[in-house]
Amino acid sequence: MMSEILCAPLDEPRLRVDVERELQTIFDEVDPTPYGDGFARLWNLAVRHIQGGKLLRPLLLLETYDALHPMASVGERQQAVRVAAAIETLHCAFLLHDDVIDQDLLRRGRLNLIGELVDGASTHVSRAQARGWAQAGGILAGDLLLASAHQIFARVDVAHELRLRVLDLLQHTVHETTAGEFADVGLAGGVITPELRAVLDMTRQKTAGYSFELPLRAAVILSGGSLEREDILRIAGSHLGIAYQLQDDLLSTFGDATVHGKDAYSDLREGKQTALICFARMSGAWHDMQTDFGDPQLSTAAAQRLRAQLRACGAEDFVSDLIEAELAAFHQSLDAGAASMPDAARSVLRSFARGIQGRTS
Amino acid sequence: MMSEILCAPLDEPRLRVDVERELQTIFDEVDPTPYGDGFARLWNLAVRHIQGGKLLRPLLLLETYDALHPMASVGERQQAVRVAAAIETLHCAFLLHDDVIDQDLLRRGRLNLIGELVDGASTHVSRAQARGWAQAGGILAGDLLLASAHQIFARVDVAHELRLRVLDLLQHTVHETTAGEFADVGLAGGVITPELRAVLDMTRQKTAGYSFELPLRAAVILSGGSLEREDILRIAGSHLGIAYQLQDDLLSTFGDATVHGKDAYSDLREGKQTALICFARMSGAWHDMQTDFGDPQLSTAAAQRLRAQLRACGAEDFVSDLIEAELAAFHQSLDAGAASMPDAARSVLRSFARGIQGRTS
Repeated sequence: MMSEILCAPLDEPRLRVDVERELQTIFDEVDPTPYGDGFARLWNLAVRHIQGGKLLRPLLLLETYDALHPMASVGERQQAVRVAAAIETLHCAFLLHDDVIDQDLLRRGRLNLIGELVDGASTHVSRAQARGWAQAGGILAGDLLLASAHQIFARVDVAHELRLRVLDLLQHTVHETTAGEFADVGLAGGVITPELRAVLDMTRQKTAGYSFELPLRAAVILSGGSLEREDILRIAGSHLGIAYQLQDDLLSTFGDATVHGKDAYSDLREGKQTALICFARMSGAWHDMQTDFGDPQLSTAAAQRLRAQLRACGAEDFVSDLIEAELAAFHQSLDAGAASMPDAARSVLRSFARGIQGRTS
Repeated sequence: MMSEILCAPLDEPRLRVDVERELQTIFDEVDPTPYGDGFARLWNLAVRHIQGGKLLRPLLLLETYDALHPMASVGERQQAVRVAAAIETLHCAFLLHDDVIDQDLLRRGRLNLIGELVDGASTHVSRAQARGWAQAGGILAGDLLLASAHQIFARVDVAHELRLRVLDLLQHTVHETTAGEFADVGLAGGVITPELRAVLDMTRQKTAGYSFELPLRAAVILSGGSLEREDILRIAGSHLGIAYQLQDDLLSTFGDATVHGKDAYSDLREGKQTALICFARMSGAWHDMQTDFGDPQLSTAAAQRLRAQLRACGAEDFVSDLIEAELAAFHQSLDAGAASMPDAARSVLRSFARGIQGRTS
């Protein structure tokens, strides 16, 4: 399961409207009717499911861009809005393929695109046939969104060298996210030994890369910033992204499900290999936990017991300390880059980091 | 199952070397090591599986390009070679996702990428876990190749307007192929009623679009040709592509499996909805055929009986006539466009069409 618990300390209504409007424009540019009813159904479902998200990644890009380039022309800024919307499209492509891989029909308690296809399949076919067709729809809709994100990057109306830089960044990001997703599947399925190092590498590749480094580096490139500045935000984004995902793991296990909106204990039921679990596995307490961990039928009582054991064995404190260390490294990387970074941009990022520390959802 | 029976009347050794060398260059431009062992394994598998193909699509592009633009500079022609290689990459992305959707582990009698992942999975995991991990690998490797094809189109070193035209063409092609694949899955799974019109539409979208129209139109655009010329080859390519796929259906059922290399009777075992089957379904003979059709355990004797019934009910003749009609329309479209098309280009295409009529593999 790819994380979608999102805090949005950058939740600026004006920016949100910019991104939502641009997403609508991107969809309006495609007329699905020449491709037939099946395609139109798939496309319209994809469009509907992409809308209404928290827009963490586009907002991170735009707030940073505005801080880095306050004097941008309307035309220049429009290109940043367009790339921000493309990053949301890319995010949804990754979520869709992640849902296919995990065979999930729900996301945040609602039917996802695949679940809606199953639900809407003809009653003449068996449930298994409907599932197969819907899984195919999930793969193909993900392909459409992945292609769409690339099309937008390919056409971004900036100087050719800058366009090549954002294309390089996109390529790197796709490679990194793919690597992280493949590692995540290998860890969950027992194909890769779940050691802490492997889990943290996976976290960095799967979440920090496309959710943090990508929007921050794109903001630098589109604002005409230097390679040095891009590198500072790459490092800062990596630390921020790991802290964010670790906080997500903590919240999923110890947070209030009525606030964060994910199914309570789903990580424990799915046997998700997190830093929490890696720590617990190295402790003497694991012996009493391993039977319940990853049990799809885990009862609430057993889940609460596991949670208490994770706390008692020190796993919660260990991960909290990791988050602190990542945030400290984040602040340090911003301090080190102070000379080549406007105060406003550093301030945006520090405010975002405060949001992570105070997250409840 | 996406068709891979390929005739290659254009099999010019020099062009083949050009494409193979360019594919190697494209792969060499990516260093997989920073993304970890799992990614490197996936990338190297994808690279190996893309090589050794018959290169139908790239060769069609290059023969046509050379005929349209014999005085191209070395640099101009290099861009055509690069796009030709990107089309092979796109083809392999589609094949991979098709194999995931069909849960195939073999292609042309050998393990495909997914099959190799299953085979190479740790012996500590169950077969089901290995299958799940390998299916994920197939989705992600397809994503990598889809992204790679887009990256090459995005960077093609031609005038900006021409680059936008090839990007438009790529977008249309991805939409069309996705529509065709989704329809194919719906037809095979019983979600869509298998009427002849639906099957022919699917054939055009799934095969004619990216295998014929894409390389032909790309050849026109990259050689600086007019929209009018592009439209002539779009229509010609569409007819050629449908004829090609219908011939493929005939060969799969009536051809010599030792020559064409596909599993004999696999279309009948898989219950593939072809024009042959649509015709048979409308005949009185269907009553005696429907039990055997789509039976995964179909015996050779029963398959031979089905084949004889398809012949006797007139399905073979019907599809042969459809092929003749498509080829006639193809020749007509070339004749109609004679004024705006060099003789050499029409000659390349007519020779290709003759190859389809004489196909045995």
